[in-house]
Formats: sequence, structure tokens, C-alpha cells
Amino acid sequence: MPASSPASSVSSSSRQSAPHVAIVGATGAVGEEFLRVLKQRNFPIGKLTLLASARSAGKTLKFGDDEITCEELTEDSFKGVDLALFSAGGSISKKLGPAAVDAGAVVVDNSSAFRMTQGVPLVVPEVNPGAIAEANIGLGSDNVAGIIANPNCSTIIMLVAINPLHQAVPVKRMIVSTYQAASGAGAAAMRELEQQTREALEGEVTTKDIFPFQYAFNLFSHNSPMQPNGYNQEELKMVHETHKILGQVEDADKMAVSATCIRVPVMRAHAESINLTFDGTMTEDQARDLIAAAPGVSLIDDRDNNRFPTPLDAQHQDDCYVGRIRRDLSQPEGVGLDLFVCGDQVRKGAALNAVQIAELLVK
Amino acid sequence: MPASSPASSVSSSSRQSAPHVAIVGATGAVGEEFLRVLKQRNFPIGKLTLLASARSAGKTLKFGDDEITCEELTEDSFKGVDLALFSAGGSISKKLGPAAVDAGAVVVDNSSAFRMTQGVPLVVPEVNPGAIAEANIGLGSDNVAGIIANPNCSTIIMLVAINPLHQAVPVKRMIVSTYQAASGAGAAAMRELEQQTREALEGEVTTKDIFPFQYAFNLFSHNSPMQPNGYNQEELKMVHETHKILGQVEDADKMAVSATCIRVPVMRAHAESINLTFDGTMTEDQARDLIAAAPGVSLIDDRDNNRFPTPLDAQHQDDCYVGRIRRDLSQPEGVGLDLFVCGDQVRKGAALNAVQIAELLVK
Repeated sequence: MPASSPASSVSSSSRQSAPHVAIVGATGAVGEEFLRVLKQRNFPIGKLTLLASARSAGKTLKFGDDEITCEELTEDSFKGVDLALFSAGGSISKKLGPAAVDAGAVVVDNSSAFRMTQGVPLVVPEVNPGAIAEANIGLGSDNVAGIIANPNCSTIIMLVAINPLHQAVPVKRMIVSTYQAASGAGAAAMRELEQQTREALEGEVTTKDIFPFQYAFNLFSHNSPMQPNGYNQEELKMVHETHKILGQVEDADKMAVSATCIRVPVMRAHAESINLTFDGTMTEDQARDLIAAAPGVSLIDDRDNNRFPTPLDAQHQDDCYVGRIRRDLSQPEGVGLDLFVCGDQVRKGAALNAVQIAELLVK
Repeated sequence: MPASSPASSVSSSSRQSAPHVAIVGATGAVGEEFLRVLKQRNFPIGKLTLLASARSAGKTLKFGDDEITCEELTEDSFKGVDLALFSAGGSISKKLGPAAVDAGAVVVDNSSAFRMTQGVPLVVPEVNPGAIAEANIGLGSDNVAGIIANPNCSTIIMLVAINPLHQAVPVKRMIVSTYQAASGAGAAAMRELEQQTREALEGEVTTKDIFPFQYAFNLFSHNSPMQPNGYNQEELKMVHETHKILGQVEDADKMAVSATCIRVPVMRAHAESINLTFDGTMTEDQARDLIAAAPGVSLIDDRDNNRFPTPLDAQHQDDCYVGRIRRDLSQPEGVGLDLFVCGDQVRKGAALNAVQIAELLVK
């Protein structure tokens, strides 16, 4: 679909091999980011279908210079679709993901619905691109339908940062505390943070629709459901998805992980404080060199100027930013490191990672 | 000084034994909290002198129903003063703390100037009250001048929470990530956060006077000076002050501590995510019982309702709040725990802790 094509409810292309792409949940924060990322990366698109709830159907969204009208998502939405990018929550993925596959589509699913399902690849392209080939899923001439899961946002950001180190010297144990943005709870949560902040500044009672607590000038334990072991679902995703992505599910000595997930009043980039214990020696300099050379991450680690990653640095960026790389004082020298990571939750944490998966499928 | 006494620049009391108290830095965030805490706790005061910079001298502050006029702080301000509560920064404490002691006063110092000085007690009343008696400093009939240091705010909040556990089963290793409020950088930083937030909501460029980065809807590595080992001063305070308060300075096997200090856009209560490794067995239930029974801390640990401590819970409260107490999944059962603490930085992190020290001196 050339950028100069006239506006149409469903764009069509003259390119024979470019896939028909559908975005499920197009009007959400991640859905709109899909449009930006696909356009910026010039992803090959033969036809683009935007799918949304009945409430949002008829709304038009920009795709470059085009305006595309959203259609209502139904079981019949996937006829002729080659690639369906799902970001409309777990229950819709569970209900309609298999329907899309039955219609012949490859599904890249942003929800947690299929992440831990055996046989469904869970992919961070910088970490485990091979998982797609293993699953025999592909677009184009060797088009094979199937579901690929996009990992949890906090997990993606963490693994892009630590994988270069882990590949050099295995990480034995990881303790992570997150500083998570509003966007992880969707566009409505971002609006709630903004509205509450206005109210708080005026000394008014804050409106609480999305979260049961005040979010403005406050922070709280992640709102995902609490599990019997005292961890919330978000925290356990960071544990279990890490093992799956790193191919350690069957390992007796898989990476020991403990996570504490906290929401902070930041709009759309997550931060994470990570403590690592290595099964061998890893120095600060080695870690810095490995991260500087790795794809998907950039260093902001300037001690002289006290300049380290912040969520605003990461906002709207493809790369995750890593800094505060230093020897863990609580362990013998060379055994442990602390570091701090920031990554855009909507972008690398969701839309970009899914599009990168799709790019691997097209290759 | 009865609450009904007429307004005066220096209040005087009829009680013979009540000490003459001076507040150094009375117009700051902690200085004003001193006034609230002293009044609320009905601290015995024979005379109250408020000391501030030349710029703030002449300003009046409320103490209950009284209005007291601030005097300019000089070397001669401490004549007749029994107790001087310092909160005007390290350089003023270094310069005038010894002058106050020479004039016969007991100094409780909120700055870091003397915290690590040998012979100066560093006290969290719930943790190491005995350190004062050891130093032979006291008010009243056995008035012995000297300096007592009030610990770093993050350290106080952390130790009030973990000490009940540590006393039962020693903590071998502690990894802490902080979520620190604006108040730790003073009243001007709180105003900057408010102003920047207003500007950010209007889409304007944010005014940066106190911090070099945008604070509104952002977070950043603590602004204290970076040290050669890659830790900032705030983080090293949490390490070294912990050892001093717990009486482990000389211990070969002192508690291993690593800290990551981050400022978040919250006004006046700090939060901390803490991972503990015990030298023995400590279960979740045991930890919960110990904290429930300990002074200075309260539990908010309601898994069924996903209700855990937030900075707004802790704001203006004496107690620090502890929750998210759970087995550390990354260690064998019973060896490690994760928990989350919130405490008012201005109150327990500064003014209240200092007044509690003064109460020990009066006893």
C-alpha cells in the first residue's frame, strides 16, 4: 500500500506477495502503535484491515497518509488474512485466535492467552528467533498458519537487556523490581493518570475507574490478579516466560527469578532494577561491552554526569536503555551485577516486538 | 509552653525542667514537620527557638496556636539551648553542630555530616536505642552535650521494617530498590514536581531548577553524587549506615547489602522493594507475626483484595507500612523473603525519628 494511495476503508495493494494484515484491537494504545511501527518499518502490506469492538467500528485511523475505517471484529473477520496482530486482551485472543488460524492466518498475539501453551512459540526476536522456525510457522510462499505469542512487556524489556550477558556467562539468579507505566493497563489507564493528576493538583478527590487506588503522585503493587503464593500474575509471567524464552522449561537448574511489580505514575515506558548472579565471572566492563554490541539495547551509563536511563529517554524508542551497570556489593567481586533498564512498554514491550516477529516470518 | 499562650517571637515556659529546644532549618520541609511532631507528641518544651537562614529570618511559623518568629542562625544562636534539632544540610551541621555542643546543647542532626563519625551514635529508636546510653549523652538533670545523628531516610524506613525479622533470624543479604519521593530533596523539589506536572499536562517545556531531568511523569537514578564504585551516595548510605545501626561495623560477616536508589514522582513517602536472605529459616507467617508485633511498623498485606502499602497510605503517618511479604521464589523455601515498605520520608524518615531520639534523651 503506497503512502500516496487514496483513503479507503480497506486499502489494497498491487504487490502480489505482500500479506493481508489485520490488526485486532486497532483502536487501543498498542493497536495505534502497530500502525505507526508498521509504517515506520515499511512492513510489506498487501491489504490492511483494522478490527475493533462494535463500539469502535466505523472509527477511522491514520496509516501514514491514509485513513482506514475500523470494522467490527467477528469470527468471520479473518477470511483472506495472512497475518493477524492481536492486541485486544486475553479473552478475545482465546476466542478468535484459533478462528484466525483456521482461516489460514498467522497470529501474533500480544495477550497472555497462549504464551505458556506448549507448541506456541514465545518470542523476543533478539533472544530466541529460532523458536519460530522450530514451530514451522511462516508467511509468504511457505505460509503455515499458527499462533506465535508476544511475551509480557516487562519480560521483553528485561530479557533484551540481560540476554547478551546471559549468553556470555549464564545468569543463575535474577531479582527484579519494576517501575511500570500506565500504558500497560491500556489507553484508559493513561487517561486516568492524566485526569487524576489534574484533580490532585487542584486538591480535588481523584476519579478512580481503572484502578482502585489513587495513581496520581502515588504508586502501588501491580493490579494483576494475586496468586496463592503471594506473587501477582505479572510477577509470575516474568518468572515463567523467562524460562520459556530462554529454553529452560525442562532444565533442572533453570534461572532462579524473583520479581516485584509496581506501577508508578509514568505514562508509557517501564523501568526495572535488576540484580544478577552469574554462574562464572562477569565484570562491569565486560557487561558494558556486551550490551553496547547487542541488538535492541543501548547504553546510557555516564557516571561522570549522573546520566542513566529514564522512562522519558525510552519513550517512543525502539531500543531499551541500560545503565547503572555496577558490581553487586553484596556478592564477591565478579559474581554479581546490578543494572537499570528502561523500555517503551507500548513499543518494544508490545507492538514493535510483534512486528519484529512478523518480519522474521516474512524473511 | 501551653497551647493557649500568646504569640511571641520566643515562647517561654513555666516548667522548670523542660528543655530549651532550637530547630535549625525551621522553614524547610523537615523543619515544619518538626513543629507538627513536637506539638502532636506533646514534647516537653521550656522555650522554643526557630533558626533559619538570613533570608528566612523574620518569617513566622505556627506551633499549635502560637506563632513564632524565625531568628537568623549564627554561631551565637545556641546560648542556653538544651536540645538543637538540625535539618539545614550537611555544611551547616558541620559548621554549627560543634558550636551548639560547645554551648552545652545536645544536637540531633538530620544531615549526613556526622553519621559515620566514630563515637557519634546513629539511632533508629526502634532498632538501636541503646546506642545513646552508650554514648553518655542526655538531657535534663544528667544533661550531657553531644551529637546524635539521625540516619538517612531510606535507611530508617528499611531498618524499621526488617529489624524485627533480623532480630529473630539474622539477615545475611539484602537487595533493595527504592521508589523515593520528592521531599527527600526538600520543599523546593516538591514544588518543582508540582510545577513541572502542571507544565507537562499543558504540553509545555518543563522548568528544571532542582533536578537536571524532567521529574513529572518520569523517574531517574538518585541525584546524590556518584561514587567511584558506580553507586551513588544515597545507596552507599543504605549500606554503611545499616552496618553502623546494626552494630556490625567491625563484623567480618556483616549483612551483605546492595541498593538501587530511584526517584519517582511522588510527593513525600518513600517505597522500597526488599529481597532478604536469612541465615536460617524464616517463613512468611513468622515474618508477618514479627512485623505485626513490632513498634513503628504496621502490616498492609491483604492478598485477597490486592491491598498493599502505597506512599499515600504512609503519608503523614508515624508508622511505616509493610506488605507483599512472600517467599522469595529464587531461593529454597524458608531461606528468602520479598517484601515492600512505604514510609513518610519527612516524618519517620526525618523529623519523627529525630524527635523519638530526643524523647529517649529526656527519659
